[in-house]
Amino acid sequence: MNPISNCFIECNKNFDDSEIVIIGIPYDGTSSYRPGSRFAPDEIRKASYGLETFSPIQNKDLLDKNICDIGDLELSFGNKLDILKKIEIEIDKIIHQNKKILSIGGEHLITYPIIKSYLKKYPDLFLIHFDAHADLRDDYLGENLSHATVIRRISELIGLNRIFQYGIRSGTKEEFDIIRNNNLLNRDLNKVKNIIGDTPVYITVDLDILDPSVFPGTGTPEPGGISFNSLINKLHILSELNIVGCDVVELAPDYDPSKVSTIVAAKIIRELLIFI
Amino acid sequence: MNPISNCFIECNKNFDDSEIVIIGIPYDGTSSYRPGSRFAPDEIRKASYGLETFSPIQNKDLLDKNICDIGDLELSFGNKLDILKKIEIEIDKIIHQNKKILSIGGEHLITYPIIKSYLKKYPDLFLIHFDAHADLRDDYLGENLSHATVIRRISELIGLNRIFQYGIRSGTKEEFDIIRNNNLLNRDLNKVKNIIGDTPVYITVDLDILDPSVFPGTGTPEPGGISFNSLINKLHILSELNIVGCDVVELAPDYDPSKVSTIVAAKIIRELLIFI
Amino acid sequence: MNPISNCFIECNKNFDDSEIVIIGIPYDGTSSYRPGSRFAPDEIRKASYGLETFSPIQNKDLLDKNICDIGDLELSFGNKLDILKKIEIEIDKIIHQNKKILSIGGEHLITYPIIKSYLKKYPDLFLIHFDAHADLRDDYLGENLSHATVIRRISELIGLNRIFQYGIRSGTKEEFDIIRNNNLLNRDLNKVKNIIGDTPVYITVDLDILDPSVFPGTGTPEPGGISFNSLINKLHILSELNIVGCDVVELAPDYDPSKVSTIVAAKIIRELLIFI
Amino acid sequence: MNPISNCFIECNKNFDDSEIVIIGIPYDGTSSYRPGSRFAPDEIRKASYGLETFSPIQNKDLLDKNICDIGDLELSFGNKLDILKKIEIEIDKIIHQNKKILSIGGEHLITYPIIKSYLKKYPDLFLIHFDAHADLRDDYLGENLSHATVIRRISELIGLNRIFQYGIRSGTKEEFDIIRNNNLLNRDLNKVKNIIGDTPVYITVDLDILDPSVFPGTGTPEPGGISFNSLINKLHILSELNIVGCDVVELAPDYDPSKVSTIVAAKIIRELLIFI
Amino acid sequence: MNPISNCFIECNKNFDDSEIVIIGIPYDGTSSYRPGSRFAPDEIRKASYGLETFSPIQNKDLLDKNICDIGDLELSFGNKLDILKKIEIEIDKIIHQNKKILSIGGEHLITYPIIKSYLKKYPDLFLIHFDAHADLRDDYLGENLSHATVIRRISELIGLNRIFQYGIRSGTKEEFDIIRNNNLLNRDLNKVKNIIGDTPVYITVDLDILDPSVFPGTGTPEPGGISFNSLINKLHILSELNIVGCDVVELAPDYDPSKVSTIVAAKIIRELLIFI
Amino acid sequence: MNPISNCFIECNKNFDDSEIVIIGIPYDGTSSYRPGSRFAPDEIRKASYGLETFSPIQNKDLLDKNICDIGDLELSFGNKLDILKKIEIEIDKIIHQNKKILSIGGEHLITYPIIKSYLKKYPDLFLIHFDAHADLRDDYLGENLSHATVIRRISELIGLNRIFQYGIRSGTKEEFDIIRNNNLLNRDLNKVKNIIGDTPVYITVDLDILDPSVFPGTGTPEPGGISFNSLINKLHILSELNIVGCDVVELAPDYDPSKVSTIVAAKIIRELLIFI
Repeated sequence: MNPISNCFIECNKNFDDSEIVIIGIPYDGTSSYRPGSRFAPDEIRKASYGLETFSPIQNKDLLDKNICDIGDLELSFGNKLDILKKIEIEIDKIIHQNKKILSIGGEHLITYPIIKSYLKKYPDLFLIHFDAHADLRDDYLGENLSHATVIRRISELIGLNRIFQYGIRSGTKEEFDIIRNNNLLNRDLNKVKNIIGDTPVYITVDLDILDPSVFPGTGTPEPGGISFNSLINKLHILSELNIVGCDVVELAPDYDPSKVSTIVAAKIIRELLIFI
Repeated sequence: MNPISNCFIECNKNFDDSEIVIIGIPYDGTSSYRPGSRFAPDEIRKASYGLETFSPIQNKDLLDKNICDIGDLELSFGNKLDILKKIEIEIDKIIHQNKKILSIGGEHLITYPIIKSYLKKYPDLFLIHFDAHADLRDDYLGENLSHATVIRRISELIGLNRIFQYGIRSGTKEEFDIIRNNNLLNRDLNKVKNIIGDTPVYITVDLDILDPSVFPGTGTPEPGGISFNSLINKLHILSELNIVGCDVVELAPDYDPSKVSTIVAAKIIRELLIFI
Repeated sequence: MNPISNCFIECNKNFDDSEIVIIGIPYDGTSSYRPGSRFAPDEIRKASYGLETFSPIQNKDLLDKNICDIGDLELSFGNKLDILKKIEIEIDKIIHQNKKILSIGGEHLITYPIIKSYLKKYPDLFLIHFDAHADLRDDYLGENLSHATVIRRISELIGLNRIFQYGIRSGTKEEFDIIRNNNLLNRDLNKVKNIIGDTPVYITVDLDILDPSVFPGTGTPEPGGISFNSLINKLHILSELNIVGCDVVELAPDYDPSKVSTIVAAKIIRELLIFI
Repeated sequence: MNPISNCFIECNKNFDDSEIVIIGIPYDGTSSYRPGSRFAPDEIRKASYGLETFSPIQNKDLLDKNICDIGDLELSFGNKLDILKKIEIEIDKIIHQNKKILSIGGEHLITYPIIKSYLKKYPDLFLIHFDAHADLRDDYLGENLSHATVIRRISELIGLNRIFQYGIRSGTKEEFDIIRNNNLLNRDLNKVKNIIGDTPVYITVDLDILDPSVFPGTGTPEPGGISFNSLINKLHILSELNIVGCDVVELAPDYDPSKVSTIVAAKIIRELLIFI
Repeated sequence: MNPISNCFIECNKNFDDSEIVIIGIPYDGTSSYRPGSRFAPDEIRKASYGLETFSPIQNKDLLDKNICDIGDLELSFGNKLDILKKIEIEIDKIIHQNKKILSIGGEHLITYPIIKSYLKKYPDLFLIHFDAHADLRDDYLGENLSHATVIRRISELIGLNRIFQYGIRSGTKEEFDIIRNNNLLNRDLNKVKNIIGDTPVYITVDLDILDPSVFPGTGTPEPGGISFNSLINKLHILSELNIVGCDVVELAPDYDPSKVSTIVAAKIIRELLIFI
Repeated sequence: MNPISNCFIECNKNFDDSEIVIIGIPYDGTSSYRPGSRFAPDEIRKASYGLETFSPIQNKDLLDKNICDIGDLELSFGNKLDILKKIEIEIDKIIHQNKKILSIGGEHLITYPIIKSYLKKYPDLFLIHFDAHADLRDDYLGENLSHATVIRRISELIGLNRIFQYGIRSGTKEEFDIIRNNNLLNRDLNKVKNIIGDTPVYITVDLDILDPSVFPGTGTPEPGGISFNSLINKLHILSELNIVGCDVVELAPDYDPSKVSTIVAAKIIRELLIFI
């Protein structure tokens, strides 16, 4: 575990007693445009101390939950396949102990080994995907494992019919063809809740779903996104589902000169921790 | 008075002839997270020259009012009680000459000595409080006079029933209990106007009520806030009341790399100056 | 042509075969507040590589159009009248070859010589003007050719009845009197489409029409603006008109620390290139 | 005079009683690379309050001199010849009252009208020129009045033999031929003092003479410059001459993110004010 | 202890076994110009991971020492006397256990309670003071306990003859009179070593002794300072003395946009930890 | 070749006629601390237009040489071995045509495949290495190909006795043992010239050899470095050698808020292009 980290606000419970585990996964090796999401977990933890632990929208307090922030996975650089394997093994270990996991990226590719691990325990897992970008390319500059192909790779594991996407506003013609042909995008949340029922669900939040005015600090900002409150409301509706894990990815603190993106990320994580 | 300052745009009328007085109060001694609101008054004055004096929404011009910007109160550092006393005495002097005052903070604690002064002249004063944070704690890290306790302290002077809050979205469980039990939050503005009638009203605007996308440059940004136009509309509705003073606090220019928060603050002040 | 430039993403077609020509006009000599829109064309081109070429909202791809980005006009500094003449001559040349032109400013004054050139070919041209500022002053600090007078000068060429303005929220009392007396502002877009019919139209987009939360990187940010999606929707509606040219002006990259304003500008240009 | 300004620290004496007059000349119309020296005078005044008035190196205090800071000359934009004329007229007026003048730019071209004015009173004036750039071009992009030609133009008025240059490390081959042929560069200061004797001297300090590590905040930083102490020492040696005026130019505050360049400029001005 | 902190690189030994203790003291309540040294301890710890533990200049490794970083003292805001008392009590406790202490500020006033504590154990303590500012004022804006008076207050405890100052280049006339009359400044280091002999010594390093080119990130940068290597060399010479404690103060991370000042602070601390 | 690039100033000669070829290699996949050297080649080219083509120190002009800037090598992300192979192949091609190559990184690991390619043509190549870091680790976090091991890997190809290092001030104890045992560091340049004689030499410049005051914009700034002029002087002395290639690496433009590091890099490249 990487020494430069400290727990998310008040998430310092004993691992064994904890229902939820937070882990930072500071990998950004395939970021094509603006790198640096590797710095996100620590910056988010730091920013969390500028928030209260109480959520007025949920009328609940983080203090009432048992959560353990175990710090960051220590990763070397340059060797993608080894790193993805290492992530998968670490997630295996935590799931094995019946914990829910909230992973903080890093880039979006980290969701791939996480889902691989989850499928061993939850073979009928649904994925709800919040993002500006479709991430459905078959390859990106010749690489088939990349932050731009991650949902495509996952769809090959669980099927497109187990994926629901929200907020997508950028992609190639081919990606939007897949979206349209499979009715992936922005489906009514209550209908989705009916479809999923009690089946385990994983939620992946690429923070660039938010409008760049709210969230400039990301690798590939895409104008025309949703507001903070709109995202929280969607997560609120989904909170009744059987959410077994989630991740929050693609904050790039170096492109967040006012630090507000980092605070936004921290507040979304606070809400998620209380939701799940 | 501090020498590094110049008047807010066109507010250079003779003190005696002026109906409204602007004063800068550059105190930020209890800011717990990101300091520097001490620099706000001067930066706001500078930014005001990027605006027109004419307000299209009100169809009125700042040039048609008699306003005197008397500069900043000179404050030493480190001695909170002396500073609060000094603010109160200065406000006493100006009110004594039957001026309305628009104070530019500085942090939110400055509202406390201002209200103490106002109550000598207007004992039945109402307070309308725009903010992201409840500011209703009884103490903060052991201090009972702080930017996080200021409205609690004021409520002990005027009663919770004379306070109306808008925009609050952060606080402890205890603070939200007070809010709920006393129906403090986001009440219909027209009903509030009926309740208040002709009684003197003071308006305090903590600029972090705005969403961090609009206003990143503040000590404790809180995602999920309102828009600039929404705030102006609320102030517009209230402008028919008998407003005897107001303040605009918590701009921290060092956290405003694009300078837009400073311009937002200046435009809100321009509108307030024409409203009152 | 200035050597530091490269084409807007995929706009590298042969000049003769191209239907649309992109030209950068890096002039900011009359910017009164925050200069540097001279750097906009190159920064926009660079940022365009962070976008896809496919527009989901239009379901069309930039790759399907023939567009030639001819780089920036090389301009010396300090000699305004010579520069305006040089712009007019360059636009004359391109129009003469029956190309549509998308010009990237630079400041808003560049629209004046462009319109002078267009009127030689399209004497009944309409102008649709997106902006935060009226730009209808008769002079600005004694100068009658300035970014603050440009629409007034154009109105003397084509008449106020051929101008439609959107988004204006700043100006002098005199400018708003002109706006009101001539019904210039925010008219229903469908009615405007009926008035214009097939007549040639020129669209000028001063990017400060956007709210400063979306677009801080401009010379004179004006709080209270519209959202990115709102602007795109307006342009979408107008795309059925006979648009013969357009410009996008007033990005000042030095005031865009997160680079998001530059990406916003690039995405608006991508949409415009597919619209026209 | 421009309203956004306040005096340099403690330079608030009555004009008539003052021996030295400070004037800001916020012109940057020919800046070719990074504009914004127009903002320098106000930022320098603000930064001066972070310094003491006492100079340990000179063992003298600014408080012991009579200095009047009259603020900034108000200039419109875009009309270079008018602006140069206006500067010359203003300097004429102040010299006429037997004041020494310290001008704060703005860009280096402002030295041209100042010298034109000085020559009326001091026809045998010497010029000592501190700079990274030779500024000896005959024209720059076709303009013969530019920040890159200013010393060439002045040499046509006073002759190259009345000019001494220090710190030049950038120029064209032609400029360095002039320098070499006329022995202009880095001559021994004590020999220069002997040559000049009691004849009136004007000192122009282009702050980019300093190494960019010390002074990044300028339009065209040139690596390899001198240190702050080296510049102060040179000025110290020259202080025994009959200095009748000086200027300090080319601070561009927007490119000074740590604000240190601005403080450097302020400290150089403090020393100059005590030297002359 | 404040939760947002992690140890300085490899300084994670058991408290009882440690020879040296690191403590962060994040107080900046009297900073008059640019606040934020409260953020220094955490940022320095983070930056320390960009350094090696091995010091080539000393040919020694941090790994070979027993050092315990106990984190930051938790301080409330606004109550100066309470805070100074709290610092003194904490230092008392650590000294009582025969540890050397390296304190990370915060502002320079923290040295006052530290020295008060040290004098109880080491009544004949010498102080070596590295700084740009004399800090010998009797009061600052009426306050007699301030970062500008700290060495004056200490001199009243230990006598001016037990103080040696290096690097001072800013102060009032009165302060420089004291310096000259008492021969405080820049005395030959080897002579000083002879004077002190084996007597216990405390070293206080105000980082603004460094030139602002090396160290822009501080509250009151003062041009004309020394280089990094010059400071390290001075500390190297002093390392043979009986150093019983030291502090490193006045990094203000918010004014360090390139983060280099923070790395400089971390490297100085690494060298000090190996020196003492 | 990557489309976002333009030639270094005036290096636009025909490839076949050119003596020197510039290539950008935007790889930063093993950067452990602050990434983004991938952006360096384009930013350096852009900054080169702020310089003159004439070098006063050499009294020569870039215009007098035949140089072709062929743009950037297009690299995908995440697959280190493929990328290193691709670099080697590209260098093979250019050397095959008897060109000298100046490569612009990217991170320091790029030097490894370049040297592998050079050794095919120049088997007795010497390496002169300018850097703050020894880069002699055997592995870094388990990776044996990294920016921290690059010179170790190269030494395995050419022998430590063919390597001369300058400026190293950071490394592990083991690395400094190698340096000392092999007398690698800071040897007298004239003696080195005698040793090398006419044998082909490759020069690799890791820009972090410069002091962070001069060059903050790099991944791992190391306080205590040399000045710009000192580096240029060293290169000047070496220019009489038979230099067959060189590279300039480790500028990270995102950490260069004042852009001065980028200008420093561009000026070093200008001098190198004229030297070789």
